[in-house]
Amino acid sequence: MLIGYLGVQPEDHCNRFKGRGYIIPMTRKLLMHVGPVTIDYDVLVAGLRGDVGFTSQEFIDVMSFSLKFLRKLVGADESYQPFIIPGSGTAAMEGVVSTLRRGDKVLVVSNGVFGDRWKALLNRYPVAVDVLKANPGDYVKPEEVEKAVEDEKYTMVTMTHVETSTGVREPVGEVAKRIRDKVELIVVDGVSSVGAEVVKMKDYQVDVYLTASQKALGIPPGAGLLVLSERAVSRLSDESVAGYFLNLKNWLDVMRNLEVSKGSYFATLPVHLVFMMAKAFELIEREGLENRIKRHERVAQGIRTGLESMGVDIVAKRPEAYSNTVTGVLLKKANPADVLKEVVTEGVELAPGVHPALAGKYFRIGHMGWVTPNDAIATLAVLERVLKRLGEPINLGEGVRAAQLSFS
Amino acid sequence: MLIGYLGVQPEDHCNRFKGRGYIIPMTRKLLMHVGPVTIDYDVLVAGLRGDVGFTSQEFIDVMSFSLKFLRKLVGADESYQPFIIPGSGTAAMEGVVSTLRRGDKVLVVSNGVFGDRWKALLNRYPVAVDVLKANPGDYVKPEEVEKAVEDEKYTMVTMTHVETSTGVREPVGEVAKRIRDKVELIVVDGVSSVGAEVVKMKDYQVDVYLTASQKALGIPPGAGLLVLSERAVSRLSDESVAGYFLNLKNWLDVMRNLEVSKGSYFATLPVHLVFMMAKAFELIEREGLENRIKRHERVAQGIRTGLESMGVDIVAKRPEAYSNTVTGVLLKKANPADVLKEVVTEGVELAPGVHPALAGKYFRIGHMGWVTPNDAIATLAVLERVLKRLGEPINLGEGVRAAQLSFS
Amino acid sequence: MLIGYLGVQPEDHCNRFKGRGYIIPMTRKLLMHVGPVTIDYDVLVAGLRGDVGFTSQEFIDVMSFSLKFLRKLVGADESYQPFIIPGSGTAAMEGVVSTLRRGDKVLVVSNGVFGDRWKALLNRYPVAVDVLKANPGDYVKPEEVEKAVEDEKYTMVTMTHVETSTGVREPVGEVAKRIRDKVELIVVDGVSSVGAEVVKMKDYQVDVYLTASQKALGIPPGAGLLVLSERAVSRLSDESVAGYFLNLKNWLDVMRNLEVSKGSYFATLPVHLVFMMAKAFELIEREGLENRIKRHERVAQGIRTGLESMGVDIVAKRPEAYSNTVTGVLLKKANPADVLKEVVTEGVELAPGVHPALAGKYFRIGHMGWVTPNDAIATLAVLERVLKRLGEPINLGEGVRAAQLSFS
Amino acid sequence: MLIGYLGVQPEDHCNRFKGRGYIIPMTRKLLMHVGPVTIDYDVLVAGLRGDVGFTSQEFIDVMSFSLKFLRKLVGADESYQPFIIPGSGTAAMEGVVSTLRRGDKVLVVSNGVFGDRWKALLNRYPVAVDVLKANPGDYVKPEEVEKAVEDEKYTMVTMTHVETSTGVREPVGEVAKRIRDKVELIVVDGVSSVGAEVVKMKDYQVDVYLTASQKALGIPPGAGLLVLSERAVSRLSDESVAGYFLNLKNWLDVMRNLEVSKGSYFATLPVHLVFMMAKAFELIEREGLENRIKRHERVAQGIRTGLESMGVDIVAKRPEAYSNTVTGVLLKKANPADVLKEVVTEGVELAPGVHPALAGKYFRIGHMGWVTPNDAIATLAVLERVLKRLGEPINLGEGVRAAQLSFS
Repeated sequence: MLIGYLGVQPEDHCNRFKGRGYIIPMTRKLLMHVGPVTIDYDVLVAGLRGDVGFTSQEFIDVMSFSLKFLRKLVGADESYQPFIIPGSGTAAMEGVVSTLRRGDKVLVVSNGVFGDRWKALLNRYPVAVDVLKANPGDYVKPEEVEKAVEDEKYTMVTMTHVETSTGVREPVGEVAKRIRDKVELIVVDGVSSVGAEVVKMKDYQVDVYLTASQKALGIPPGAGLLVLSERAVSRLSDESVAGYFLNLKNWLDVMRNLEVSKGSYFATLPVHLVFMMAKAFELIEREGLENRIKRHERVAQGIRTGLESMGVDIVAKRPEAYSNTVTGVLLKKANPADVLKEVVTEGVELAPGVHPALAGKYFRIGHMGWVTPNDAIATLAVLERVLKRLGEPINLGEGVRAAQLSFS
Repeated sequence: MLIGYLGVQPEDHCNRFKGRGYIIPMTRKLLMHVGPVTIDYDVLVAGLRGDVGFTSQEFIDVMSFSLKFLRKLVGADESYQPFIIPGSGTAAMEGVVSTLRRGDKVLVVSNGVFGDRWKALLNRYPVAVDVLKANPGDYVKPEEVEKAVEDEKYTMVTMTHVETSTGVREPVGEVAKRIRDKVELIVVDGVSSVGAEVVKMKDYQVDVYLTASQKALGIPPGAGLLVLSERAVSRLSDESVAGYFLNLKNWLDVMRNLEVSKGSYFATLPVHLVFMMAKAFELIEREGLENRIKRHERVAQGIRTGLESMGVDIVAKRPEAYSNTVTGVLLKKANPADVLKEVVTEGVELAPGVHPALAGKYFRIGHMGWVTPNDAIATLAVLERVLKRLGEPINLGEGVRAAQLSFS
Repeated sequence: MLIGYLGVQPEDHCNRFKGRGYIIPMTRKLLMHVGPVTIDYDVLVAGLRGDVGFTSQEFIDVMSFSLKFLRKLVGADESYQPFIIPGSGTAAMEGVVSTLRRGDKVLVVSNGVFGDRWKALLNRYPVAVDVLKANPGDYVKPEEVEKAVEDEKYTMVTMTHVETSTGVREPVGEVAKRIRDKVELIVVDGVSSVGAEVVKMKDYQVDVYLTASQKALGIPPGAGLLVLSERAVSRLSDESVAGYFLNLKNWLDVMRNLEVSKGSYFATLPVHLVFMMAKAFELIEREGLENRIKRHERVAQGIRTGLESMGVDIVAKRPEAYSNTVTGVLLKKANPADVLKEVVTEGVELAPGVHPALAGKYFRIGHMGWVTPNDAIATLAVLERVLKRLGEPINLGEGVRAAQLSFS
Repeated sequence: MLIGYLGVQPEDHCNRFKGRGYIIPMTRKLLMHVGPVTIDYDVLVAGLRGDVGFTSQEFIDVMSFSLKFLRKLVGADESYQPFIIPGSGTAAMEGVVSTLRRGDKVLVVSNGVFGDRWKALLNRYPVAVDVLKANPGDYVKPEEVEKAVEDEKYTMVTMTHVETSTGVREPVGEVAKRIRDKVELIVVDGVSSVGAEVVKMKDYQVDVYLTASQKALGIPPGAGLLVLSERAVSRLSDESVAGYFLNLKNWLDVMRNLEVSKGSYFATLPVHLVFMMAKAFELIEREGLENRIKRHERVAQGIRTGLESMGVDIVAKRPEAYSNTVTGVLLKKANPADVLKEVVTEGVELAPGVHPALAGKYFRIGHMGWVTPNDAIATLAVLERVLKRLGEPINLGEGVRAAQLSFS
């Protein structure tokens, strides 16, 4: 809102949106970010409840619905256990520690910043960690992972389905197939994939699929989501190296009770966020998960076609590495920070680059959640104009035209 | 929301948005209509109050603020009297009857359906009405009006600033200058202009400027707004031919009291809508009225350029007839009804044509309120694709490219 | 919201709620007013839609649902024609003029300010008007009306089901039975009754039942609602004395089209308000209309019991005049204006008295819409404390105790 | 909302509210719970933003404002470091682990379930833990704590300001004074106190004060809040035994950057919740923190007076153990589970008892956040009626009368 909070200058906000000869009204901004993303108001409005507590039957019921739906989202069946916990994607990652014991060995397959995060996280615990790393823009090949688990015995292998820092997609299904028999636990970070990429947890025989609310599910941030195989659940015990709040053992009975609509408590769940989540899940059900993935695919393709036609390069190095949700954009002359600042004045907000190897050379477009071809076209149009103004060699009008042809 | 009301099939809504291989989430639709238009959520949210009555001080205060702001919107000074009444633009038109007496003679300057509406309305009262009519797409020339008021004595001349049925703009300032000395009352229907076109009520010496909430002001429908000159106010009396509810004499003291923050009642005002109105006015103040008009002008120009480049014609026949708010689009082969039905499936809603002389040949794009260049680009992109599919000869990609160039 | 609009001092709002040693947060206020009333947030939230126009299929569908539901609310069948028009209760009253022709004669049965309003309104038209008046707090007896229509030939008799200015209920069913054969049209103003009192339009053979959105239906103000018998509909014609906007003839086809989910236009309907209305109707359906009336009855009884036990008198003079929706409270010593000002500081807002014969002697409590026994208890508690402070002889604690016993 | 999510039966909700001869509309329920509580709609609505990401300047600004305000809430000065992290109160408790090293020794002062939680939590880490326990309804005396820290060397002492399971308040200021020189770190769990009890972090020389969003601050759940002294901050290091996500060292720079309005990232913050938090903080500022505490005190006192007068006992054993936020209610005959189920049908939701020593003997009333005397009266009234119906010996009407007298 334009009206600011005490001590915050609302005029600043207004100035920030002053464009080239006109002003973009504030709530009409497109948030083409990596999460949170532009959120459908039906989702936001579902949390507008002044009277729901964690023991309210209406909360218990939507929690039950959400847990069940989460299974479907990752392609799991009744034998898998879903968890919705307070926190974020990183909290969900740390929840995985609940399945590890002192001395376990983990192989981290890393395509960027969020792959590397597994190492930093696991290093806080008494477990051993090895990392297989791809160059920026590329992904670790399935055969490399296969070789690594043949050379060495690992309890767990972690992969990042879509690496949010570069927009690169790992072929997790193929990797899983190759290593399934050689490791105890296969973990996939689906933070930028669940809801927008094909996810077949059961078919791939993955043990943990995790994600966060604010990504392709199009919900505000505040929850980490995990689904565990029976094998993974069987490892939740007092022997694990996990702490307390993010220890899934403490949440197990709570989730099981809530799923059958029985009140249960360990720590306070983000009640209002779960109402929003249930509404998002309902909208996903109505759209159809396949349709939703297809929509993301088309939008992503339109954006990439548009970017190439306007004359900029994409971080992901090969077509099979392209993701449906995030695209890194490499610049030749313009400064990414200036681009981000300038596009906001025309009603589009993009995400900064975070991969240290590409620092100062790229920015990111998130295209997930409730995103439409209309958002893609508008984003490309703003980007063309802004990049041109900032000295990047751009074929003005060609990006939007190419995207338009791709959508027709 | 996807969830329907009792007896309404929510599936219908969902189907309606099924596009070409993807589905547009429902609340991401662009409403490029002639009113209501796409509304900023900050405006809508301002009405979310469960506890305000018409005697609540907080209502009285925002009513006071809104009345004062309305004067600024039309370029009037303190000597002018603003009115905010329940109803719509047509209710505001009928409010004008409060200044007429039995036997008065009115000249209606009509450029289309809403010009003609004055005649139908005034015919319900004991006053005489003559009409000066333009061909569809054109406007009545100032010199024609001047001649008419020289040939015959009229109490009142009514004009329509922007004719919503065709998107044609009347040069009301010039007309007013030419006829000012020859008629008692000059009335301008500013329904599709106030907030988006230059309006200088005092400079033009206009006696009544009226508008509606749901047009360029970007508020939901539910209120008619009028500003009256002292001369017009002096004619509010028991001798007028007006009825009761829309008789401005009954509202005069109420408006005067509310403006000085004193509670007052004649009939119940749309309390929640006035909160939304005040928020919209506040946003307009922050944007700056001049900036807002400039924004509308740029968007309108981009849309017209895009339409011409994709290969369709515009209803308004000459550039000086173009308006900032509504553009009629003429089709050669496609059926307008099919176009309207089809664009919705891609997330854009447009308005049907209503001018009887052009029936079945055109549709309208509304571009007012909180509209941005991003909305224009997205609308043109959808339109190009849909028209192409429906057999209209279209240069695919050329419309969006031309608009893009116009915005850079 | 505490944050004010430009030019409005938010501090004022804050001060206004400063109570006796504590401050009541602003949105927790109880609006025990005569309309608008405390509104359920589910109803308000249903209007939070930034993308619906009057030709949007989703609007057309909820309008269809609302029209059908309106018939049920007044106990009419398919042969009756419902209307939802922009405006208010007074606009709905003036809509009745659409059934009158030059020279028709109307008998107004008046129990107070809103009864008298019929005369002021009808006097603007070329029809004759007689008035039968009750003393303040009383109602015109059925036999008096019967006698009047026997003595003189009237085209129309109007009654006010619950007189909002005094809270007095007219036995409209009995009156209708006595006069049915002697007049052409029986009209009931159900503004403070529909949704909270028993209304059997068909059984009573009433020709027009009208109401407003912001009363017992618990919707924001902005619409007038009417249901007409076939006989009333047959009188909608060009010969009527009605004007244009409130001329039901102009709305007839629109309502018929919208009811069968066909788009139709005469003037712009309050689109967002209709979404709220449909939600309210849905909630009424789920509660059950009979349950809803029973809830109003219990709350009203609790309030009256509480008032009497604390030691104040009620305006309505006899039990059979009591209404389910409005109670006038007579004061012995305290000034009503002071009471209204003071109760707000403790989080309850009441309505001023408006009957000229009781000026300065009473105020009103509205108890309609989504009102609960909890609201009644809280209101009585605040009232006891405030009246005591302002010098009224009050048995502190006795009012709430008596209400409590009445609810158990 | 009555309309349910897919797979959830909305009828269930409706039935749940069917009372004794009437139905309570759903969103009018009073949530007198221990958190989340009844939330002011101004707070909820502040989160209704579809376009804010964690790098959006508007988020960074409200985060800056919120961090600064958090210091004021606990009575700290600029030398203290505030943290707002995703999670809940338990997450904030585990954040305290960031200040502990292998082998540290902690004394837990426990008055109930949430005191005991410190032990369970700390047991997951390589630190030693001793517990000083009070009987249910009582608190550990300051002199007992003093003696314990004299007998044994502890790195840290933890206290629970208000024990949510029993509503008992610990005199934390006095304890802190007695032990300040004898321990390195004093930690207070202010989950049910900050915003409603006097908190003077600096005066007491406490090192960590923590709380959660959904308690007396009146915000939805989803964030843990902590303020650390310089001494506590100096212990954030790689040597701590903490994990990753809840390791405050990882959040330190993020909080420092955000406070000076510089974008910063470690894990995704609950962006929308922070907007709600900032609005709540703004409302608290306007109310005045002292006024707010006084309001809680008066409401709590009214509730206790009412409970005693109706004839039930309170869990807290002595007046100096009473808290402003939670009251445990002991039953003689009725089953607490039945009481909770039944009060909901009359529009009030209360919290179950959780102290194992009192299992089946009590329930809890939460009275915090935006709670008013009106809520207290309504709650007592419902409770009286329900307890009476369920066979508890109750003086019907005496509870509400006594509360009423206490408020006047």
